[in-house]
Amino acid sequence: MNDSTGYSAENCSIARTLQIVGERWSLLILREAFYGNRRFEQFQRRIGIARNLLATRLATLVEHGILDRQSYQEPGQRSRHEYRLTAKGKELYPILVALLDWGDRHVADPEGPALLLQHRDCGAPVHAELRCEAGHGQLAPRDVTATPGPGARLLPSA
Amino acid sequence: MNDSTGYSAENCSIARTLQIVGERWSLLILREAFYGNRRFEQFQRRIGIARNLLATRLATLVEHGILDRQSYQEPGQRSRHEYRLTAKGKELYPILVALLDWGDRHVADPEGPALLLQHRDCGAPVHAELRCEAGHGQLAPRDVTATPGPGARLLPSA
Repeated sequence: MNDSTGYSAENCSIARTLQIVGERWSLLILREAFYGNRRFEQFQRRIGIARNLLATRLATLVEHGILDRQSYQEPGQRSRHEYRLTAKGKELYPILVALLDWGDRHVADPEGPALLLQHRDCGAPVHAELRCEAGHGQLAPRDVTATPGPGARLLPSA
Repeated sequence: MNDSTGYSAENCSIARTLQIVGERWSLLILREAFYGNRRFEQFQRRIGIARNLLATRLATLVEHGILDRQSYQEPGQRSRHEYRLTAKGKELYPILVALLDWGDRHVADPEGPALLLQHRDCGAPVHAELRCEAGHGQLAPRDVTATPGPGARLLPSA
């Protein structure tokens, strides 16, 4: 990428995404949702997050349409909620896989990754890869140029 | 992905990556580093982060080998530091592109993305895409299975 001096970083899509999910607990809640966990107690137990924090983070994710909150009731029990990923929420998956890839390379235990992601159809390992729409893959930062898009805002001083 | 109940999330590579870079300011510093910005003042001005927070975050990124701190001196000025992405740091790029992709789809201004990433060689737009090593691309969460890897730890109660 190249320098973007002269343009405002104010409406940057990275910053806006981070405002919604860019908090460690939120991303761990989403990890659990991708594992198929849906219930407050499951999130709480697996993440080890304080209940009040978990409630706040879940409310934020519901508010932004990333998780959908539904009621369910088991026989003889009171009504509870479960949280399911929406289509918008499922589109966050590449972010989690990219975090996993980097962690597996740099901070995994000596034994290796704790988790393996595989393509359901063929069994090959899955990664988040930078590709262009013309099909060129495994791009590195030096292969990518950044230019102002239609929403770019010039800095007042530029 | 499928349920991972029975296995510990303690040594999860996602959680470990987030412990290092999973703080909004750190990811915004890295965004600026990928733009080619290297100096404290540039980071400070473009991100709008408090100086003490910026100093702390930079120190953490240097400590983990993500940024390399080097001295430089301009004629007649005192010695200053600049911060460059290491090879390990450059491997974080897919995380930022995945954050950008989601933001562009869901939270960009009506005019469109503020930033366009293009393949330097062919000009086509670049995205972070889930692919398997056998070459099957544009995988969605339902196309991916998660199984315990060599570093998986059984939960005591399982």
